[in-house]
Amino acid sequence: MTGAAVLLHGARDLRFGSVPPEDLVPGRVRVAVRGVGLCGSDLHYFADGRNGATVVTAPTVLGHEGFGVITEGERAGQRVAIEPAAPCLRCPVCLAGHYNVCPDHTCLGSPPAHGLLRESVVVPAQFAHPLPPAVSDEVAPLIEPLAVATWALRRGGPVAGRRVLVTGAGPIGLLVLQAARAQGAADVVVTDVSPQRLAAAGALGATTGEPGPCDVAFDCSGAPAAIRTAAAALVPGGTLVLVGVPGEPAPAFPLQLLQRQELDVRGCFRYGPGAFATAIALAASGQVDLAALVTARFPFAEAVTALTTALTDRAQLKVLIDF
Amino acid sequence: MTGAAVLLHGARDLRFGSVPPEDLVPGRVRVAVRGVGLCGSDLHYFADGRNGATVVTAPTVLGHEGFGVITEGERAGQRVAIEPAAPCLRCPVCLAGHYNVCPDHTCLGSPPAHGLLRESVVVPAQFAHPLPPAVSDEVAPLIEPLAVATWALRRGGPVAGRRVLVTGAGPIGLLVLQAARAQGAADVVVTDVSPQRLAAAGALGATTGEPGPCDVAFDCSGAPAAIRTAAAALVPGGTLVLVGVPGEPAPAFPLQLLQRQELDVRGCFRYGPGAFATAIALAASGQVDLAALVTARFPFAEAVTALTTALTDRAQLKVLIDF
Amino acid sequence: MTGAAVLLHGARDLRFGSVPPEDLVPGRVRVAVRGVGLCGSDLHYFADGRNGATVVTAPTVLGHEGFGVITEGERAGQRVAIEPAAPCLRCPVCLAGHYNVCPDHTCLGSPPAHGLLRESVVVPAQFAHPLPPAVSDEVAPLIEPLAVATWALRRGGPVAGRRVLVTGAGPIGLLVLQAARAQGAADVVVTDVSPQRLAAAGALGATTGEPGPCDVAFDCSGAPAAIRTAAAALVPGGTLVLVGVPGEPAPAFPLQLLQRQELDVRGCFRYGPGAFATAIALAASGQVDLAALVTARFPFAEAVTALTTALTDRAQLKVLIDF
Amino acid sequence: MTGAAVLLHGARDLRFGSVPPEDLVPGRVRVAVRGVGLCGSDLHYFADGRNGATVVTAPTVLGHEGFGVITEGERAGQRVAIEPAAPCLRCPVCLAGHYNVCPDHTCLGSPPAHGLLRESVVVPAQFAHPLPPAVSDEVAPLIEPLAVATWALRRGGPVAGRRVLVTGAGPIGLLVLQAARAQGAADVVVTDVSPQRLAAAGALGATTGEPGPCDVAFDCSGAPAAIRTAAAALVPGGTLVLVGVPGEPAPAFPLQLLQRQELDVRGCFRYGPGAFATAIALAASGQVDLAALVTARFPFAEAVTALTTALTDRAQLKVLIDF
Repeated sequence: MTGAAVLLHGARDLRFGSVPPEDLVPGRVRVAVRGVGLCGSDLHYFADGRNGATVVTAPTVLGHEGFGVITEGERAGQRVAIEPAAPCLRCPVCLAGHYNVCPDHTCLGSPPAHGLLRESVVVPAQFAHPLPPAVSDEVAPLIEPLAVATWALRRGGPVAGRRVLVTGAGPIGLLVLQAARAQGAADVVVTDVSPQRLAAAGALGATTGEPGPCDVAFDCSGAPAAIRTAAAALVPGGTLVLVGVPGEPAPAFPLQLLQRQELDVRGCFRYGPGAFATAIALAASGQVDLAALVTARFPFAEAVTALTTALTDRAQLKVLIDF
Repeated sequence: MTGAAVLLHGARDLRFGSVPPEDLVPGRVRVAVRGVGLCGSDLHYFADGRNGATVVTAPTVLGHEGFGVITEGERAGQRVAIEPAAPCLRCPVCLAGHYNVCPDHTCLGSPPAHGLLRESVVVPAQFAHPLPPAVSDEVAPLIEPLAVATWALRRGGPVAGRRVLVTGAGPIGLLVLQAARAQGAADVVVTDVSPQRLAAAGALGATTGEPGPCDVAFDCSGAPAAIRTAAAALVPGGTLVLVGVPGEPAPAFPLQLLQRQELDVRGCFRYGPGAFATAIALAASGQVDLAALVTARFPFAEAVTALTTALTDRAQLKVLIDF
Repeated sequence: MTGAAVLLHGARDLRFGSVPPEDLVPGRVRVAVRGVGLCGSDLHYFADGRNGATVVTAPTVLGHEGFGVITEGERAGQRVAIEPAAPCLRCPVCLAGHYNVCPDHTCLGSPPAHGLLRESVVVPAQFAHPLPPAVSDEVAPLIEPLAVATWALRRGGPVAGRRVLVTGAGPIGLLVLQAARAQGAADVVVTDVSPQRLAAAGALGATTGEPGPCDVAFDCSGAPAAIRTAAAALVPGGTLVLVGVPGEPAPAFPLQLLQRQELDVRGCFRYGPGAFATAIALAASGQVDLAALVTARFPFAEAVTALTTALTDRAQLKVLIDF
Repeated sequence: MTGAAVLLHGARDLRFGSVPPEDLVPGRVRVAVRGVGLCGSDLHYFADGRNGATVVTAPTVLGHEGFGVITEGERAGQRVAIEPAAPCLRCPVCLAGHYNVCPDHTCLGSPPAHGLLRESVVVPAQFAHPLPPAVSDEVAPLIEPLAVATWALRRGGPVAGRRVLVTGAGPIGLLVLQAARAQGAADVVVTDVSPQRLAAAGALGATTGEPGPCDVAFDCSGAPAAIRTAAAALVPGGTLVLVGVPGEPAPAFPLQLLQRQELDVRGCFRYGPGAFATAIALAASGQVDLAALVTARFPFAEAVTALTTALTDRAQLKVLIDF
């Protein structure tokens, strides 16, 4: 174990190096990383040395979408998807089952915490989720974004037989689309400004075009205009889930419409209890096509190229790094 | 309009006759019946002249699973599935959205109310649900039992990524199985005493065998032993939905287990708000195979044969009558 | 029955006149009005001839907070609080128990529908709620705003043992405060720009001052700044209920905070199923002090003075008109 | 620190002795016990050397209702109510916020785990709940049973304005009664076979007599007949919470009624997230009268007399032991 890693030293400054392996304590497992997916927040750090208010002030290993094999600790030898959460598990928020919004929460790959673009990582055993053979190595890094999608569905309430709207057809939007269909949505309308992404959504079963009245909407864009469109498309009593990170400063929002129609607007942050298990089950059953999102793969040695490609090539959906 | 109908005069005494067409009042529509499915309660009335405490005391038209075409009133010409409910829509129970347990509820085909085995019927417009072309005449009568299944799923809470148990593989059990899979259940275990029915369940995607720990269980048998098995198979905090009609007198039930494990046991009666729309959407999308349940069809003129076959031939799942 | 009424002909143009008594149809009751409270929307119509987008285009009877005695129809002689709602009770929204956001909803006193400042009114029997003797005539018109408050509490979820924030200490805010305390809130912080209203809140048990972290917040002001303050005061996973009508155009709202903290923002419009019964029970038990809100009373003959006083005297909380 | 303790060696065999003080590890606090209440399960162990299937096989310290002062660890000097739970906090059940039904759950005072009738105890810091001055030493041991009651209320759903039934007027029943009233129940009917206990309930605001239709019922007796009475008293869609431990073998239960009326029957075990904080808030606000339940107090040196009195004197409600 050499501790090989890719470290971000600052904007556009990514270098190979190493980080000392963590100690293994009871209740934790060491996982040899096998594959990592790149996410928008990784690209923000890479491009700007920051993501919103979080700044890279010391060399940091990026990456929070990944899988590997347990090498030490309970269940050694098992293939696992890594839930990168690190909640305290003792505050009232955690005890109540909302660990994803634990105030003391940290997350692998959110500076200063090192992420997954390294040889191995130690994580709490309960956050190393067993992968059945039906989830291949090729798509296993996508369990994490799929967990975002399955959690969004939980936040949105039942979709069976309902009309669903997804604004934003990036990787998360395409996974929310698929998860909604796998949970019986009558129809899923997807909107995006990119014709290419709309075409990808259409290929995965979305209706594209103007959103009509819908029961549940998921904003996966963060764009204020899309969020307003989603709110306006809801039936009385409908629900809007904010999955994408809304831009700052705080944008205008139709509060009077929300009040008069008794809409619910629900924030959605990462993934709460059960989201990874649900994502793995959906992927294993074949109800969700993860491979459709993978547009490029690079070996670990070409991690810098991978990040550069993901950042600069707008045609990419999900770029993976194999170990 | 002749009012042609099949009337039950008493046990095993089914005769062709007629019933006077109802008046059409505002807010209602007249539907020419096109197809009717036979259900266990129809067979109880036919066999015994009663179903539990409800006795046939005057000639009654049976049938509550059906579809037809609106011939008078709003939306004339439209194909519709008939929700046979007749709640009062003004008591506190109805106002709160629980119209299926309205104390003043009646139901088409529950004596003394005439049912659907007749030329036409007048129903509240909101209970005549539009059928899209994707739901063929051949399977349209099964929308009603599928609505039972979709309502059971609503009562049971989210199943996505969860292990589901269905006890009883009759038509309702097979539809609950399919609805659970269409809503993303990780695994659906089905139990039944009949190997033939288990085989049908297996063909529709069920796991068969001993139930292991499950998150949500649906009893579709009404058999006390099956209900106890279902309760015992639940994880802590799990949910058991009673869909089948439990036998009387009141059987033993493991209340201490329920208390210590914080189980929820939820009754499920017919279908509440949105169940028909959900059923139609699931059927139209092809996520549920209704045709697989149809084991025999008869023309209206052979209605007596149809009922006799459904009653005596244990191999039948769903027997339909076409008009 | 002369049909005596006070009609608004346009801004500041209120005249005594009469409206023809409505026909009594089955399922409805005629109520002799005995007392009416004045609400902010009445004052908007009086001051400007309009309330938001709704304009008085023909002489209209104002008033939607009232009680009376049934004079015709079922339960004649009974004292009743009037729920002024007129939902269709047959659309999917109504059937699902959300009748307060029925798209075909009208409301007594919302032009062009005549309201309660008249001799008698005909309403659906289920919306004439029996008043027990413990709710005196003096406070009975306040059942309607208390129903707004009890519905807000339902929308907000359980408050027992929780820290509650109420922004805005007008009549609705003071009733939400009292309802929250009557449902076991650990602490209720109230904010308002008016020291006089804050003092009233303090006298009813509120904590006043800077809001600290709270679990549930109710905005009863409609003021964008107050709504933002409420959102910022919430714990992770907290809930904000919008009870007051937010001003237009759409104000800025901290959507990123909402997303990252998994807040719920829930609209709250009038009152849904059970709200009046709950309000009556709370008032009858003495857990809520309605008399504390009444700052002036006028006889029906002085209705114009009553409206003028309510509009111009900022010290008024609730002005009542007795018949 | 001598480790002084009262140990149960077998049925009716209670002796003073000592247990070695536990190690203090990070995240835990040592609490000097100041007061302990006796509960039915303590009395079962004392009388029979067992409670249901759990048998005393080695000398064990009883007691799980208590408070004390932190002497070591964070917040030293603070008065705290002790939540005796010891869930694993890492299994899926715990992560989902259901830690009270954690399969690896143990509990202070449930053999072989030592309880609170000893000089000091080490507990997880998050389970040592701060007591405000408004909760006096005299009643602080009753926070634990009040937490049972507040959790039961959470399981039962909103009670504001609703009719509540409590079957069984022992300490838990009397606390559920009070908690329901403190949360705005319109009426709380209490039933019991003991006229003395009914009188206690009446003094605390209960209606006593035949239960009419009720919205939510709490069985605090465990008696099968009472549970059946409660189920039969529910309105359609009503909820029955099983708080008391139902006797074994499994009794008859009206499953058909449950199914046809869409009742919910919900198990309730100890207390989940937030229950202690809610109990402390209710007690501190004076909305619940804990002192009314205390019928006897003994010093620690007379612990054997205390247990004997609680066991043999049927007039006792809650017997406390002061340190």
